[in-house]
Amino acid sequence: MAAADTDLGRARRARVVVLGGGFGGVYTALALERLAAKGAPVEVSLVNRENYLVFQPMLAEVLAGDVGILDTVSPLRQLLPRTDLFVRELEGVDLQRRVVTLGAGLTPQTLELPFDHLVLALGNVTDFRGIPGLPEHALPFKTLADAMRIRNHAINVLEQASVVQDPEARRTMLTFVVAGGGFSGTEVAAALNDFVRHAVGAYRSIPREDVRIVLVHSGERVLERELTPHLAAYATRVLSEQGIELLLDQRLVAASPLGAVLAGGRRIPTRTLISTVPSSPNPVLEQVVGLPTVRGRVECDATTAVQGCEGVWAVGDCALIPMPGGEPSPPTAQHAIRQAKVLAQNIVATQTGARRRSFAFTGLGKLGALGHHRAVAELPGKITVQGPLAWLMWRGIYWSKLPGASRKTRVAVSWLSDLVLPAHPVQLNLGGARGATQAHYEPGEVVFEQGDAADSLFMILAGTVEVSQRVDGRPQAIGTLQAGEYFGEMALLGRRPRSATTRALTALDLLVLPGADFAALADSLTEFRGEFEQIARSRAAADAARAGTDARAEA
Amino acid sequence: MAAADTDLGRARRARVVVLGGGFGGVYTALALERLAAKGAPVEVSLVNRENYLVFQPMLAEVLAGDVGILDTVSPLRQLLPRTDLFVRELEGVDLQRRVVTLGAGLTPQTLELPFDHLVLALGNVTDFRGIPGLPEHALPFKTLADAMRIRNHAINVLEQASVVQDPEARRTMLTFVVAGGGFSGTEVAAALNDFVRHAVGAYRSIPREDVRIVLVHSGERVLERELTPHLAAYATRVLSEQGIELLLDQRLVAASPLGAVLAGGRRIPTRTLISTVPSSPNPVLEQVVGLPTVRGRVECDATTAVQGCEGVWAVGDCALIPMPGGEPSPPTAQHAIRQAKVLAQNIVATQTGARRRSFAFTGLGKLGALGHHRAVAELPGKITVQGPLAWLMWRGIYWSKLPGASRKTRVAVSWLSDLVLPAHPVQLNLGGARGATQAHYEPGEVVFEQGDAADSLFMILAGTVEVSQRVDGRPQAIGTLQAGEYFGEMALLGRRPRSATTRALTALDLLVLPGADFAALADSLTEFRGEFEQIARSRAAADAARAGTDARAEA
Repeated sequence: MAAADTDLGRARRARVVVLGGGFGGVYTALALERLAAKGAPVEVSLVNRENYLVFQPMLAEVLAGDVGILDTVSPLRQLLPRTDLFVRELEGVDLQRRVVTLGAGLTPQTLELPFDHLVLALGNVTDFRGIPGLPEHALPFKTLADAMRIRNHAINVLEQASVVQDPEARRTMLTFVVAGGGFSGTEVAAALNDFVRHAVGAYRSIPREDVRIVLVHSGERVLERELTPHLAAYATRVLSEQGIELLLDQRLVAASPLGAVLAGGRRIPTRTLISTVPSSPNPVLEQVVGLPTVRGRVECDATTAVQGCEGVWAVGDCALIPMPGGEPSPPTAQHAIRQAKVLAQNIVATQTGARRRSFAFTGLGKLGALGHHRAVAELPGKITVQGPLAWLMWRGIYWSKLPGASRKTRVAVSWLSDLVLPAHPVQLNLGGARGATQAHYEPGEVVFEQGDAADSLFMILAGTVEVSQRVDGRPQAIGTLQAGEYFGEMALLGRRPRSATTRALTALDLLVLPGADFAALADSLTEFRGEFEQIARSRAAADAARAGTDARAEA
Repeated sequence: MAAADTDLGRARRARVVVLGGGFGGVYTALALERLAAKGAPVEVSLVNRENYLVFQPMLAEVLAGDVGILDTVSPLRQLLPRTDLFVRELEGVDLQRRVVTLGAGLTPQTLELPFDHLVLALGNVTDFRGIPGLPEHALPFKTLADAMRIRNHAINVLEQASVVQDPEARRTMLTFVVAGGGFSGTEVAAALNDFVRHAVGAYRSIPREDVRIVLVHSGERVLERELTPHLAAYATRVLSEQGIELLLDQRLVAASPLGAVLAGGRRIPTRTLISTVPSSPNPVLEQVVGLPTVRGRVECDATTAVQGCEGVWAVGDCALIPMPGGEPSPPTAQHAIRQAKVLAQNIVATQTGARRRSFAFTGLGKLGALGHHRAVAELPGKITVQGPLAWLMWRGIYWSKLPGASRKTRVAVSWLSDLVLPAHPVQLNLGGARGATQAHYEPGEVVFEQGDAADSLFMILAGTVEVSQRVDGRPQAIGTLQAGEYFGEMALLGRRPRSATTRALTALDLLVLPGADFAALADSLTEFRGEFEQIARSRAAADAARAGTDARAEA
């Protein structure tokens, strides 16, 4: 090996750049490292946003608190000791110049990585565009951060529900809606159901019956696309028996801060909407000139080579790789791992002039956890398993696939501690949330009520707002506001409750500036503050004239 | 107990509201719960921002990764089963009306809690105001979130240092500066030193000798205010032997994105500045009308009663409680815990007409961890212990004080796993950072260089910026910008590198809008985009005229 490390030796090796650190990317790099150790003339770089691989099948356990936060992640440097790791954002891929551009890190310089072989392993992303309000108000469930965020949000909701006085507001807070009845959606609904129904025991003031977990699914049974009809029916029944409300044959069409809207107009008031659909291939792929894609996935032949692009390969969820029967591989970890092995061997075969292999794997079976220590499994040969036995299989199989003995030990310790030590619904407050955000309201929804505490300033991006005030106890419209106008500044400047009610007349998109940020801006920028104060004064004067009284008395 | 829970029984009990969930507040509530169980006529509410108590002495271990993230926290609902917990922001205290106002939660309503007795247990806060650049660029080390943030930042710095090409930029990234040589500063410097020097082993491309941990302290020895001269000298030597660079008799006077500035003008280029000073009592106390305070701490008599305010009590770091000798109690957990017991008994004594007790505790000793399994301890009777034995004592004593058997088990399991399993420097990317931030630059510092990748837009809050361009390879000033003006928009609109260099002529305060947020705003608000485009065009035209060439060629 020492001789091969000289500059001369290095120059002869092919530079392989792997984009993405999920199962596909990591197992490709792993296979290439092993082949290189046996003398294959390749050197590997891997680009990923994080320095760890997330073991996604266990994210629902992180949400439920069954395993520790870091139990499900493996450090890439430890897994891949001979790979050069670049923890940077991917900025672009140039197939002509054969370079990958990485975004700026702590210094303001972008970085170019030249490649001989490029491996696209960019996976799926949750893509909420296209459903109004979903990008602003739905929680995705895809990454470790997502699982943590949902857990923290659920605990926050319990804390606030325990001290809120209005029973309707409390029921809204205690309603948790999950959209999507595939593997991901059923697992998160089951984990959330287990977690919330257990955690609520610590809150004396919360009536148990106010807790609702709702699963919205477009089909007749959950998991019907993934499993046999028999198992799908079993899974549907198990979820329902655990107290999960199933809204089947229903579709989410909009979301707002007040709740979820289904096709047909039904509204579910909630503060927690988790959506596992829709997901789509990484949008970076769409921008690569000359890459053949079908609905965002990269078209490959059975050797995992991208069609028409010599030295470009794809693997995993972002790739469209035919199975022996001709149909495309499904987007699962078991397929990605086996594609990665074929891919790595074919890169080396290309370098050494050997013959390329074809991907020939049809799947080992399917597993889904259903909460309450129950699961469903579909094995080769049409064998199906369900209930606690399937759940033990589920844990056993995934545990055996955890990379490394130390990870296996940590997870086993967590599972054991969990049996003997009480769970602790601790909210890990990392304080990230601040700065301007966007919000979407459906027609008719109230943004704030007269008398509410004031916590933000709103600017209208699209839509119309109606402003009204109670005069002699009756609401009276006093005007409308359009895109480009803002509202809510009066209460913030005066530190008093809202002096009017605002309501969306149309679908409404808002830019929301938190009160603390507004205060910081107003303190720093006298002009900014002056402008708002002037408008607030003229609005207050108009209020006073209209009500025939001093507007300040409203406060 | 059942009879006492009737409305009649409740009406007679005194309502005690405890503000703050640190050691002082939690142990007060705990003592009151115990007295109530024995029949004392009190009911307790506790207000805290989080639903857990952080075991602060172990935060440095979280940073170093020796214990799990949640090992050091205890859920308040589990510790205090009979206390009503309010996880809300504290908005105000009205001693006249005898109510506490809590901020809005998930609903926009504030909440008023009436009290018969009020316990102020609001602790210390890190207060960076007064040192230019410190609020924007220094990391505090006070809460669990702070410890996690420092750990994540250190890992990010290692990742970026491993791929940066400029050796000077790399050395800057690998310099970690800690300000303050008290218990907190020495513990964080020691933990960071242990963690970084161990973690860097996973980064092949980082030269070990580039790592610098610098501790800036205003005294001649670290811990000289806390320990005997002999132990302070020992602690100073131990830190120095571990490779921590001690800058003694030095003071931090400013910070910027580029580094730390010391009194006398010395600059330390760094991307990581942690400051444990200055800390001050919670500013909420300053706003309470009628509360006697001395330098922010609440003046109490030896019974922990606030002077001149019947039914108002204070405990812990925010309280000024005389010890038997007359001098005030130091701000340590051991004093807070014992004050809490006295306070609770005195509230009950007030209700039952019994005699109040006085606080009579002078301290058990002092302990400080120094990294590398070394510590210092000062025990009563002038006994001093140092080295590994003191470190074992440190762990043993704090472990025995962990609340609850399950917490003790979890920490013990973590410590044991740590001995047998390899540590994993995994960056927990929770994605919080976004939105506008502020930045401070010292005179002469560069905000960005011509040719840098563009990632943000800047607005000047205070100060003057010089703009220059290279003409025939030589930098040439082309103008200055003042408060209220912005810069950096040209590169963002055109998605190309910076076309000019900007430098602070004076101390400079900026509002920084990240490129992604700028893009979102520009997409949503056509007017906003139009205004920027117009200014960008006129600046580009001026550039073109000046350079006698098409400005676009610069890109």
